[in-house]
Amino acid sequence: MPTFQPVRGMRDLLPDDAEMLTYVMSKARETAELYGYREVVTPVIEPYELLSAKSGEEIRQRMFTFKDMGDRTVALRPEFTSSIARLATTAFKNEPKPLRTLSIGSVYRYDEPQRGRYREFYQSDFEIIGTSNPEADSEIVLLTDRFMKSVGLSNYAFKLGHVGVIRGILNQANVDEKTQNAILQHMDKKEFNEAFELISSEECLTTLKGSLELKTEDVFKTAERIESHVEGYCKAAESAKELSDILKLVTEGGCPVKSVEPAFARGLEYYTGMIFEVYVPELDIALGGGGRYDKLIELFGGEPTPATGVAHGLDRIVLAMQTQKAVPAKNRRKRVAVVPVNETVKAEALRISEMLREAGIVVELEVMGRKIAKSLEDADKRKVDYAVIVGERELKQSSAMLKDLAKREQSIVAISELAKKIAG
Amino acid sequence: MPTFQPVRGMRDLLPDDAEMLTYVMSKARETAELYGYREVVTPVIEPYELLSAKSGEEIRQRMFTFKDMGDRTVALRPEFTSSIARLATTAFKNEPKPLRTLSIGSVYRYDEPQRGRYREFYQSDFEIIGTSNPEADSEIVLLTDRFMKSVGLSNYAFKLGHVGVIRGILNQANVDEKTQNAILQHMDKKEFNEAFELISSEECLTTLKGSLELKTEDVFKTAERIESHVEGYCKAAESAKELSDILKLVTEGGCPVKSVEPAFARGLEYYTGMIFEVYVPELDIALGGGGRYDKLIELFGGEPTPATGVAHGLDRIVLAMQTQKAVPAKNRRKRVAVVPVNETVKAEALRISEMLREAGIVVELEVMGRKIAKSLEDADKRKVDYAVIVGERELKQSSAMLKDLAKREQSIVAISELAKKIAG
Repeated sequence: MPTFQPVRGMRDLLPDDAEMLTYVMSKARETAELYGYREVVTPVIEPYELLSAKSGEEIRQRMFTFKDMGDRTVALRPEFTSSIARLATTAFKNEPKPLRTLSIGSVYRYDEPQRGRYREFYQSDFEIIGTSNPEADSEIVLLTDRFMKSVGLSNYAFKLGHVGVIRGILNQANVDEKTQNAILQHMDKKEFNEAFELISSEECLTTLKGSLELKTEDVFKTAERIESHVEGYCKAAESAKELSDILKLVTEGGCPVKSVEPAFARGLEYYTGMIFEVYVPELDIALGGGGRYDKLIELFGGEPTPATGVAHGLDRIVLAMQTQKAVPAKNRRKRVAVVPVNETVKAEALRISEMLREAGIVVELEVMGRKIAKSLEDADKRKVDYAVIVGERELKQSSAMLKDLAKREQSIVAISELAKKIAG
Repeated sequence: MPTFQPVRGMRDLLPDDAEMLTYVMSKARETAELYGYREVVTPVIEPYELLSAKSGEEIRQRMFTFKDMGDRTVALRPEFTSSIARLATTAFKNEPKPLRTLSIGSVYRYDEPQRGRYREFYQSDFEIIGTSNPEADSEIVLLTDRFMKSVGLSNYAFKLGHVGVIRGILNQANVDEKTQNAILQHMDKKEFNEAFELISSEECLTTLKGSLELKTEDVFKTAERIESHVEGYCKAAESAKELSDILKLVTEGGCPVKSVEPAFARGLEYYTGMIFEVYVPELDIALGGGGRYDKLIELFGGEPTPATGVAHGLDRIVLAMQTQKAVPAKNRRKRVAVVPVNETVKAEALRISEMLREAGIVVELEVMGRKIAKSLEDADKRKVDYAVIVGERELKQSSAMLKDLAKREQSIVAISELAKKIAG
């Protein structure tokens, strides 16, 4: 029989990579704790209707959709926000606001596999539900800043925008929502001509085109120029003001915003306000991004409820850490190989192993029945700190042989003293 | 629009339950570390062929199977062992043995939902690959013991068996493997008559029936009686001896084995040797179980490679902890609500929040724009320890108002002293 390979687009994380991923997850949990976000665990499998309602055509077409054995049309979640919005209308309906949630887990999109892009990938997702204030948007950006810092990344930078500016311009020309979504998706992919073709109003088109020229090196100046540019467009002007407010709050909070983008849109349809992404210079894919979605919870049958959130691409963050050689801080425990000299002392070796583990020492018990020399050679390769050799003669004196594998020293140590001696 | 519900059989873990699950996961990781097991992350979606090859008819029929957009027949993993066996024949092919792996994540089975049984559930899975020695089996049992203890469970007990005993009896009567599997599955469900009907040899039937009468209260005596009962059956006798050896090792290691079951089989087809399960008296479902599977890796195209492992049902462990009122040990950080008195001091409030988080303090920033009294009332409900009220007057002296919400005391504190004062 030939060997099996993972399904195309899926991959295995071997121990070093898996350790990085769980490290990054632990940092996401630490960040959540510091900001008062509590973790919830939602299913990977959700109703297709829920996931497709507002995620946008592009994601909709790339979902893993199928029928379960009860003939329900279900899909594997392509993101977390829909599931959290579902909770906001059900289990969390009567919870006091603001509601702050964290989700961590795998999500699924049938994309073309490439570096940093898999069909199964991992996200941490933070949502704050129940407030439309700019300090909530700022909090989402700032916690992302802290998260990036906590995993040891440097030179990362934020890109800020506000979908309300462009939507506000389009609203004034009575462009319907569906067309607005199509225009934003084109603009997000820098397909400007395709976007412009969907607009019939000359005035609207001029204002929109003009807004693309507003970007400067200075983010505050860009924000100001956007404010002036849309002065006559009531909703767009409000959005531009909000963008300026958020920009001020996050930069005062120490967050490195490198660009404010008038034409920035993101792939998801549900955004209504501030949007942002974070990048490192070494990778051209975003490490995280999010924004405000004030209509989604209402659309899912809840009360009108403003909300804002962010998803972090954990695989990409690991990739960025590896590229920048950011090494996780490890509190390394002492490692010991326990080797019985023969069959008759196996039970004793096992008991000693358990005793050492009880003291917080990592023990690899010799379970291959190898000769001592072979076993020690292997322990050396695995960078084990000590070997405990369990022999009959020493056992009679309630002792065992302790070998320091780095110093190449050995001595007979009372079993009751082993843990203390190893811990140093 | 009506609200959405989770797909039948799926469920949401709200914060208290999610915290229990992540706590149990962290304990599984700690156990793995102490025993030298390294974590790997394999995909939820695997080739159907891989998952169905040796999992057994019952699980095969309950898998979530579908075609992906590339027309591949795939399924959601119902367990981890097949994925790890796949790795053993590919990425880990040339790794030194023994190979010790941990997997943690969700698995999927289309079972009838009931208490402690969901269609999506969580497992931690430990595998040790490359040795047929009983100390490897013992290690798997003992680490399960330590894991149960580490999450605070009590009165749990192990059930031990060995599929080689029954298979050895059936082998001698030339019962083919497929029929053996069917017999074992019937016996596992205590459908003894259905099992017996599949056996034509009278002698074999008598021996098999006899083996069901061997159980006594004393586990060592049961193991001895099994050894005597199958003396004439070469393979079965070897298996019975091995079961006795493992029983001795694990009980000397301190593991509470409450029963040795001659007719114990488990649902999975790939087992070839020792099998076990662990229970608490309060629940009639196993919290974990596993066993030896010496043929699987070879079947997947690898070298003949003996292996043994265990999967723990993390949702059930959480349920057992809740039933036994085992409370996770928490190292609770101090919690603070930061409340700006008005719009103009928002940025300062945000800066103070970041400073406190930097010091490891949990900060919930007031983002609802509520009045101070309302905000403090809410902080009180959330069992926050302190409130920091940021006002213009105090800011002029680089200070803020610190309220101890438990003691109902308040004082003006220099901003630079806040973290120290709160941390105590």
